[in-house]
Amino acid sequence: MASLCILRAFLDRAFKSQPMPRISRRAHEVPLSPFRKLVPFADKAKEKGTHVYHLNIGQPDIESPSPAWAALRNNRETILAYSPAVGKLSYRRKLVDYYRSFSIDLTPEQIVVTTGASEALQMLLFACFDAGDEVIIPEPFYANYNGFARIADVVIQPVTTQIEDGFSLPRLAAFRQKVTERTRAIMITNPSNPTGSFYDQNDLAELAKLVREKDLFLIVDEVYREFCYDDHSFYSALRLAGLENHVIVVDSVSKRYSACGARIGAILTRNEQVLESITRYAKLRLSPPALGQIFAEAMLEMDNQYLDEVAREYDRRRMVVYQRLKAMPGVLNYKPGGAFYCFARFPVDDAEHFCRWLLESFSHEGSTIMLSPGSGFYATPGLGQDEVRIAYILNEQDLHRAMDCLEIALQEYPKVKAEIHSTVD
Amino acid sequence: MASLCILRAFLDRAFKSQPMPRISRRAHEVPLSPFRKLVPFADKAKEKGTHVYHLNIGQPDIESPSPAWAALRNNRETILAYSPAVGKLSYRRKLVDYYRSFSIDLTPEQIVVTTGASEALQMLLFACFDAGDEVIIPEPFYANYNGFARIADVVIQPVTTQIEDGFSLPRLAAFRQKVTERTRAIMITNPSNPTGSFYDQNDLAELAKLVREKDLFLIVDEVYREFCYDDHSFYSALRLAGLENHVIVVDSVSKRYSACGARIGAILTRNEQVLESITRYAKLRLSPPALGQIFAEAMLEMDNQYLDEVAREYDRRRMVVYQRLKAMPGVLNYKPGGAFYCFARFPVDDAEHFCRWLLESFSHEGSTIMLSPGSGFYATPGLGQDEVRIAYILNEQDLHRAMDCLEIALQEYPKVKAEIHSTVD
Repeated sequence: MASLCILRAFLDRAFKSQPMPRISRRAHEVPLSPFRKLVPFADKAKEKGTHVYHLNIGQPDIESPSPAWAALRNNRETILAYSPAVGKLSYRRKLVDYYRSFSIDLTPEQIVVTTGASEALQMLLFACFDAGDEVIIPEPFYANYNGFARIADVVIQPVTTQIEDGFSLPRLAAFRQKVTERTRAIMITNPSNPTGSFYDQNDLAELAKLVREKDLFLIVDEVYREFCYDDHSFYSALRLAGLENHVIVVDSVSKRYSACGARIGAILTRNEQVLESITRYAKLRLSPPALGQIFAEAMLEMDNQYLDEVAREYDRRRMVVYQRLKAMPGVLNYKPGGAFYCFARFPVDDAEHFCRWLLESFSHEGSTIMLSPGSGFYATPGLGQDEVRIAYILNEQDLHRAMDCLEIALQEYPKVKAEIHSTVD
Repeated sequence: MASLCILRAFLDRAFKSQPMPRISRRAHEVPLSPFRKLVPFADKAKEKGTHVYHLNIGQPDIESPSPAWAALRNNRETILAYSPAVGKLSYRRKLVDYYRSFSIDLTPEQIVVTTGASEALQMLLFACFDAGDEVIIPEPFYANYNGFARIADVVIQPVTTQIEDGFSLPRLAAFRQKVTERTRAIMITNPSNPTGSFYDQNDLAELAKLVREKDLFLIVDEVYREFCYDDHSFYSALRLAGLENHVIVVDSVSKRYSACGARIGAILTRNEQVLESITRYAKLRLSPPALGQIFAEAMLEMDNQYLDEVAREYDRRRMVVYQRLKAMPGVLNYKPGGAFYCFARFPVDDAEHFCRWLLESFSHEGSTIMLSPGSGFYATPGLGQDEVRIAYILNEQDLHRAMDCLEIALQEYPKVKAEIHSTVD
């Protein structure tokens, strides 16, 4: 027995001191989404029985269109084969009609179907940028751009926008200032995740000047194009005349059809070199998801009723959040023009601490809320410390309850902070 | 009218001389699959009315399991939501049971569901390698490894294997010779695409020595594990004792369930650092395809009958190709141990020219065949020039017809070549 114990101890030690190949340095540098650090606290809150209103994520609670589900039920294929690397031709043909309804003229050959907008972004960062090249992006921006840029070894040069004017597009001089010899593109999200800002035809025409002057790509993430409010008319960058070789649009069915799990996006461009290199990349990974394409194709066969209703629903939710925030003392907000997000400035000095406190220590009638701290959406250190992103992806009743929580929390939080300080002092 | 014409001419010129942002240098360096250059010739052959037997691709003609289609029909979800970034827990739990049937002990937390094996490879090349790091791979290897390595800026160091001994694993010294300060991993495909070679427990134990000695990752692509013939018993690298932190396995449902379009793969490892960094990457791109996971999960609920039948079917096809090639004068081949591919050496000096000639100028009873030229599967320049890869993914009758074509083509080709030479002389 004794010798067995010695053997076991020896093996244990040998196992623990076992050498281990190290992971890459670059893998350490991929940042997580701004709210990911809060997930354990949300889980704990739920374990305690607290209901958590999730205003931190872009997963809508709206049903995906029933014709899409029906198309899956009625599908009579027997082999779930690879689709063409650039996507099924029948699907790309229907996309041509869909884009035409936004006055965007494309051929099926100018569309490459991707595994969500995420893959589209990865492909573009590789196809348009060499290691060390730069992209100019207005901040705050979609936080995962950071991770994708890190993977592709592309440097993000941020142009700061301001909550005071609803994060509207800065003057062209601010962009021009950021252009260096390594700048390859300007990238925007229109309407914007995370701010809900909407860029109109004039905004795009301004950017077009610099893009033409410096011969840059203009990459526009247009996945929220259906969700424009206050009679804003969406204007796609693909309509800019004379920039056929400069404009590249990223698209996805995830948000407009509430079909995030389909993982179907697209790259749209008339630049043949970009198309050729994207197609090479597409062939490498063989095929976008075939079932998601069946789902997405069926959605394109519907009339506009579904999308109109969804847009009206988000508009109502937008107004709930806008008006409730406006009525809260010390909160700075604005009326977002599109998408289903907004930013707000809170009377707190550390929004991340406040968001964590909401989950760890606060509840109102058995509920609390989860928000995304704002700083994670900025590239410039120190910005957004008193800001949060709110995704209005819950129904109006739940949104009102969530706003009740927030209103009371903002009243209680200063007292708690004061207590902490007095204790520490 | 004249002024209009002048305006038009001016605009045309302006448009043509329009500056154009250039694509990245690295995008130019992504190689295409070995058979891609032949696709236009295959298309032309079909336009002429020639039937083309495709032995160049890995898209099986076998039906996907009907319970998987039924699961889609019976699915009662209403929102096609993001799945967890690492894959649905219910699916990963079923995978645990599946792997246990191969004596592989894993927890659901040691499985990250990916968008096919393609995404798994991209994630691993990023997580385990920095730019300029090296991976040792026996050649010939799956040609798309070249493209993925280029994207991740990883250098492939090939260890050449030989058709004369059925591409069996070289002695360890050949691997050791390739190890440098930048070597991070040895990667193999078992059973192998493109050679059909099978590596047994002893082969893996050999590699394990070097992996342990040099503290490398051992990355094994095991997507063909079900297809082992001649009573070969599959031995997963995850069974190697004491290498818990070194072994990473890439998997996919594409081939075993004839479900290439599902785009569902996985990374399996017990190395927590790798899991953590892969999970970060997974969160960046939000979610693997949700519908593909429903499909894949249903396949795991079946008994083994489907897989057994499919393996027997491939075995019969294997024997058709093996015996037919063996009977052809001047052809060198071997009995592949697994997967559904084999290599063969033909009595030609340029297999790429021969493959093109098959499509451009040859037909037998209205048919011809498409093969993959061998050189594209080697990293060492000049190798594989007289070799081809054959995928036996057609039914036995079609395979016999395809082999008839090949047999006659190999008789005719030297005469044609002689004629060309005499004309040129």
